[in-house]
Amino acid sequence: MNFASDNAYGVLPQVWAALHAADQGTALAYGNDSATKNLTARFAERFERDVAAFPVFTGTAANALALACLTPPFGAVLCHKDSHIMTSECGAPEFFSGAKLIGLDGADGKLTPDGIAEALEGLDGSVHSVQPRAISVSQASELGTVYTAAELTAISTLARAKGLKLHMDGARFANAMAHLGGTAADATWKCGVDVMSFGATKAGALAAEAVVFFDPALAGEFEYRRKRGGHLASKMRFVSVQLEAMLQDDLWLASGARANALATQVASQLKQVTDIEIAYPVETNMVFARMPAEKAARMRAGGVQFHDWFPVQKDGTVITRIALAFATPDEHVARLIELAKK
Amino acid sequence: MNFASDNAYGVLPQVWAALHAADQGTALAYGNDSATKNLTARFAERFERDVAAFPVFTGTAANALALACLTPPFGAVLCHKDSHIMTSECGAPEFFSGAKLIGLDGADGKLTPDGIAEALEGLDGSVHSVQPRAISVSQASELGTVYTAAELTAISTLARAKGLKLHMDGARFANAMAHLGGTAADATWKCGVDVMSFGATKAGALAAEAVVFFDPALAGEFEYRRKRGGHLASKMRFVSVQLEAMLQDDLWLASGARANALATQVASQLKQVTDIEIAYPVETNMVFARMPAEKAARMRAGGVQFHDWFPVQKDGTVITRIALAFATPDEHVARLIELAKK
Amino acid sequence: MNFASDNAYGVLPQVWAALHAADQGTALAYGNDSATKNLTARFAERFERDVAAFPVFTGTAANALALACLTPPFGAVLCHKDSHIMTSECGAPEFFSGAKLIGLDGADGKLTPDGIAEALEGLDGSVHSVQPRAISVSQASELGTVYTAAELTAISTLARAKGLKLHMDGARFANAMAHLGGTAADATWKCGVDVMSFGATKAGALAAEAVVFFDPALAGEFEYRRKRGGHLASKMRFVSVQLEAMLQDDLWLASGARANALATQVASQLKQVTDIEIAYPVETNMVFARMPAEKAARMRAGGVQFHDWFPVQKDGTVITRIALAFATPDEHVARLIELAKK
Amino acid sequence: MNFASDNAYGVLPQVWAALHAADQGTALAYGNDSATKNLTARFAERFERDVAAFPVFTGTAANALALACLTPPFGAVLCHKDSHIMTSECGAPEFFSGAKLIGLDGADGKLTPDGIAEALEGLDGSVHSVQPRAISVSQASELGTVYTAAELTAISTLARAKGLKLHMDGARFANAMAHLGGTAADATWKCGVDVMSFGATKAGALAAEAVVFFDPALAGEFEYRRKRGGHLASKMRFVSVQLEAMLQDDLWLASGARANALATQVASQLKQVTDIEIAYPVETNMVFARMPAEKAARMRAGGVQFHDWFPVQKDGTVITRIALAFATPDEHVARLIELAKK
Repeated sequence: MNFASDNAYGVLPQVWAALHAADQGTALAYGNDSATKNLTARFAERFERDVAAFPVFTGTAANALALACLTPPFGAVLCHKDSHIMTSECGAPEFFSGAKLIGLDGADGKLTPDGIAEALEGLDGSVHSVQPRAISVSQASELGTVYTAAELTAISTLARAKGLKLHMDGARFANAMAHLGGTAADATWKCGVDVMSFGATKAGALAAEAVVFFDPALAGEFEYRRKRGGHLASKMRFVSVQLEAMLQDDLWLASGARANALATQVASQLKQVTDIEIAYPVETNMVFARMPAEKAARMRAGGVQFHDWFPVQKDGTVITRIALAFATPDEHVARLIELAKK
Repeated sequence: MNFASDNAYGVLPQVWAALHAADQGTALAYGNDSATKNLTARFAERFERDVAAFPVFTGTAANALALACLTPPFGAVLCHKDSHIMTSECGAPEFFSGAKLIGLDGADGKLTPDGIAEALEGLDGSVHSVQPRAISVSQASELGTVYTAAELTAISTLARAKGLKLHMDGARFANAMAHLGGTAADATWKCGVDVMSFGATKAGALAAEAVVFFDPALAGEFEYRRKRGGHLASKMRFVSVQLEAMLQDDLWLASGARANALATQVASQLKQVTDIEIAYPVETNMVFARMPAEKAARMRAGGVQFHDWFPVQKDGTVITRIALAFATPDEHVARLIELAKK
Repeated sequence: MNFASDNAYGVLPQVWAALHAADQGTALAYGNDSATKNLTARFAERFERDVAAFPVFTGTAANALALACLTPPFGAVLCHKDSHIMTSECGAPEFFSGAKLIGLDGADGKLTPDGIAEALEGLDGSVHSVQPRAISVSQASELGTVYTAAELTAISTLARAKGLKLHMDGARFANAMAHLGGTAADATWKCGVDVMSFGATKAGALAAEAVVFFDPALAGEFEYRRKRGGHLASKMRFVSVQLEAMLQDDLWLASGARANALATQVASQLKQVTDIEIAYPVETNMVFARMPAEKAARMRAGGVQFHDWFPVQKDGTVITRIALAFATPDEHVARLIELAKK
Repeated sequence: MNFASDNAYGVLPQVWAALHAADQGTALAYGNDSATKNLTARFAERFERDVAAFPVFTGTAANALALACLTPPFGAVLCHKDSHIMTSECGAPEFFSGAKLIGLDGADGKLTPDGIAEALEGLDGSVHSVQPRAISVSQASELGTVYTAAELTAISTLARAKGLKLHMDGARFANAMAHLGGTAADATWKCGVDVMSFGATKAGALAAEAVVFFDPALAGEFEYRRKRGGHLASKMRFVSVQLEAMLQDDLWLASGARANALATQVASQLKQVTDIEIAYPVETNMVFARMPAEKAARMRAGGVQFHDWFPVQKDGTVITRIALAFATPDEHVARLIELAKK
C-alpha cells in the first residue's frame, strides 16, 4: 500500500485512450504534429488568454527550462528553502539557467512578501552580487499548502515593483486548484504569474508536463533551450495528447480533487489519534503527520509505505508524509487509518 | 506518405502491451521500480557482459549524458562533421559535458583512423587547447552507412592508444545490426566501444532510449547527471518496459531489418531511374537519392514527403533523404517508386 | 581617508622592485618562465611540504578555480551564509564548478562542525539532491574573525569522515596568521586544509593570488580550468614575482600584522565611546562598529570613508565596517578615532 | 633570442610610469576609481564615438566575455578554423557564452563573405541546430594578415543582413593598424564592428586588455559577467592606467609599428634565402617561414627561439613562426637573419 508518492500510480484510462488514438498513420516528428500545434490553443482556452505552451516529459525539465527563460546566468531566483527546485532537482534549475537559487524561510512551505523584501535588501544590487530576476512559488507547496490568490498577488506585486518575474511550479497544480476553487485564470496570471510548470503526471498522465507562458513574449528562447536540454521528443504527439486528455473536461482537476478528498479524510481520522499530530494545514493531497518514530515503523510493518519527510527529532518523533493520489484505493486508506489507530 | 523521418510512425503492439502491463497497482517512483532495476540485467544478457544501463526519453539526452560521463569541461570529443551530435542537437552534448566537439571529414559519413590521427596531431596537448578525451561514432551514421567491426576496432585501437574513450550513437543501432549480422557484443564492446546510446524509439518504442556502459565503472556520475538534466522520469517504469519489450525476442532487430529491407528495395528500383543517382551506400534504412530539384518537387506533389538533406547544388540537383521505417506500408513504397519512375 | 577597503592602498616597494627586476630581457610566455616555475618551490618551503601552487590575478578566480577542482557539477559546497564566495562573487564559484553553494549559519562568520553535520543530514544522499563534496572556510572570515587550529581540525575531521574536501579562502590569510602566530603549516594542512586561496593583493601586491594545493594530486585539472577561465596570464612572470616578493622574509605576514595592529588600536579606542559597540571579536584588520546611523553620517562628513556592512536597524543603529590596511597612515587612524569620540 | 612570442618582452617605460603614478594615496576598489571611470572617455576619443570600455587582464578573458554578450547559450559564433578563439583558448569562449564556435576555412587566416554565407546555409535555422548570432574576426589574424576596410565591411554587411553581431579579436590590433594606416574608427565601427578586444599586453603593457563596445547598448551584461568570471580586479586602477598610458600619444600604435618594421625586414631578408619560403603575406609582426625542419633545428641551436606553427610536412619542411615585438633588439634580428642565411 503505497503512500510514499503520488507518482506511485499509473495512467488514467482517458490518457491511454488518447495515446492509442494518436497512434494512427504517421505524424511529423519533433512537435510538428497537429496535436502539439493545437496544444497552445487548448491551454489558451483553459486559462482564458493567449499563452505559449510547450510539452516536456518531466517536472524538473519544466521548472528548469522555464526559469532559464527568466534569468541570465548571473541572476538569482528566490524560492522557499524547502521547495522542490531548491532541494530535490539535483541542481537542474541552476544547470539550465546558470542562476543562483536563494532559499528563504516561510511558514508552512510558503514564501511571504516580507521574507522576499528582506532578502532583496540583502542583495546589494552591486556587481558583486547575483542579480535577483525571478521568484518561484510552488502551488501546492512541498508541504501541501496552497497560496491564496491574495497571497500570490501580494508576491507578484512586489515582484513587479522590483523587476522580477514570477514562476509557479505547478507539479501539484491540480491539487491546489481543487482546494482553491475558482478558475485557473484567477489562480495564475490574474495573480501576476508569468510562467508556470503545469503538472499532469502526478494527476494521471504517463509522462507529461507543460510549460505555460502567460506572456508569450517570454517564450522566445524556450524551444532552443528545450532541444539543447534533450527534452524535444521525437514522437512528441504522444506527450501532447496526454496533456490534451488531461485538459479535456478538466480531467486533471477531478483527479486532484479525488486525491485531496482522500487526504482530508486521512487527516480528520489521524487527528483523533492521541500520539499523532498534523504538522501542516492539509489543503491538498498530502498529510504530514508527526508521530513517534516507532509508531511509524509499526505502521510500515503493517504494510503501508510512506516517507519520513524530516530527520527524526530528539523527542523521538518524526514528521512523516502520507501522499494520496488520484487512484489510491479506498481500502488502502481504510487500512492506513486502522494501522494508525492501533 | 511519410518518408521524411523514421520517427513518423508510432508504437509497436508489443510495446503497447508492455506499457499496459506496467500499469498494475503501484510502483516506486524515479526508477526504484522493478522493471528499471531489472533493465541492466536485460541489457547484460543481450550484450553478453556486465553493463550498466539507464533509460532516458530521447536520443539527444542519451548522447549528451553519455558524453558528459567521458570528458571534463575542457575536453574535446572527435566526431564526424555531419554527425547528429555535431549538427542536430542544438549543442546539447556541449551543454551537458562542457566539452568541445571537433567535426572531422570522412567519406560516407564515417570517421577514419587517419582522419582522427591527423586531428589529434593538430591538438597540441598544451594547456591552450582543449584536451581530446572521447571519440563518438554513429552506428548507423547520419548517411545510413555502417562501420564494419574491423573499422570500429581500428578506431578504438587508436582511441585506446591515445587515452580516449569511444562512444557510439546507436539511434539506428537496430538498422546497423540488421545490416551487420552477428551479435550485438561483436559489434560493440568487442570492437572497443565503451558506452553506447541504444535507440529504441525509431524502431517502434514510444519514447525510450538507453545509455549502456560496457565499462560500468564509467557510469559513476550518470544518475546524478541524468537527474540534474531533468531526465529522471517519475514514472520510470513506463520507459523501462518499452526497452524490455524491444529487447524481448530481439524485437528491435526485426524492426530494423524490416526498415532496411524496404530501403534496399527502394534503392534497387531508384537506381534504375535515369535521373536518379544513389549518393551513398544503402546499408540501412535510408536512401540518399540525388535527383533534379524539380523532380523532387513533382514527387512531393504526388503525395510523398521527404527531406532535401543538403542544399540544392549548382547543377540543379539535390540529395534527398528517403527514410524507411519499421511500419512503412508496402503500398507507400510502391507509390514512391512509381512517382520516381515517372 | 579610506577605511572602506583593504584594497584601497597600492603596492609595497618590495613588490615594485620585484616587478622591475622581472622586466629584464625576455621570458617564455604563459607561465613557462623561471619565476613561475619556481613558485611552487617557494610555497613548498613556506608551507613545509610538497604543494602545487598556481598564480592568478584575483581572489575570486582563486576561489572559483580551486573549488572547481574539488567538486563535480552536481556537487555542493558548504560555506558560511555570509562568506565572500556566497555573497560577493556574483556566482563565480557556481559558474566555474557547476556546484551549488549551501550557506550555513554560524556565530561571528564562522562555520561549526554541528552546523555542518546538521546540513549534511538534510542532504539525503539520493540522486534528487546535490552531493556535498567540499567545505569552504574563510580565514580570516568576512567578519574578521579567525578559526583556531582546533576549530579547523574539528571541521576537517568531519569533512574527512564524510568524504568532503576542505578549501580555505585566504584572501586575508596574512591577517589571520598574524593573529594566530605559529607556522603557516600549523594553520593549514596540519589542520586538514586540502587547498587554499592565498591572498597577496590585500597585503600589498598589485594583483596576485595563488591557489595552493596541499595535495598536489588534486591539482590535475587546474591548469586547463585556469586557461579556460581566461586566467592564464601571457606575461605570467609579473604575477609570479609579486608572490615571490610577498613570501620573501614573510613580507605578507608583516603586512598583515601592521593592519591588525591598527585595528586593535581602533577597536580599543572605539570601545570607550558610549554610543559605539564593537559587534564582533576584533582579531584581524577589520573593526565592525555598531553606532547610530547619524553618527556614521557625521563621521563620513568629517572625511572618513567606510561601509555600512548590514542594513540600518530599526533602532537607528548600523553595523559599520572599518577596514585597516598595511599602509593606512597613523594620522588617518588618529583622525578616525577623534571623529568617533566627538 | 626570443622570436617565439610577442609576449616575451616586458613593459614599456611609459606604462611603468603610469603604474607608479597610480600608486598614490588610496583609490576606491573594484573599478570605482577615477582612472577606470575615465577610461571609457579615453577610448571614446580614440575611436571618435561613444563607446563602453572595460579593462580586463587577458586577451582570452576579453574575447570570451565580449562574445558572451553577443550570443545566447544556444547560439553559434562563426570564426576562422585557425583563429585563436577556436584553437588556443581551451574553450574559454564556449565556457563563458555557452555557444558553439564554428570554424571556417579561408585563405591566409581570414574569413570571407562567401565562406560565411555557405556556412550559414548549412545551419538550417531549425530548433535542431545552434543559431548563428555572431561572427568573430581576428585583426591581425593568427597568420599575421590584415583585413582591409573593404573586406571587413563586406563581412559586416552580411552579418547585418543575417542578424549577426561582429566581434573583432584585436590582440594585435596595434600591428594591424600600423599596417592599415588611417584612423581606428575607420578600421572598426565604420566597418561595422560591434565590439572589439583591444590588446595592449603584446604592445608593451604588463597585463591589460580592453573590451570596447561600439554600441554601448550591447554592454548591459558585461560587468556582471566579468565579475562572475573572476575578472574584476580589486585594484583595478593598475589595469586601467596601463591602457591610458598605451592610448596616450598613440603609444600602442608606435609599438605595433616598430614590431611590424622588424618583421618586414626579416621577411625581406629571408625571402632571399633559397631554402626558405614566406608562407603568408607579411603584413604585421609575424613571419611564417617554411623551411627544412633540420634548418629550423640548426637555427635554434644557434640560439634563436621560435615555434613550428604547423606539424612537419611529409617533404620534411615545416612552417615556423617568427614573432617580432616592440622591444626585439636589432642585434637579435641581425643574428636571426645571419643564422637563416647559413
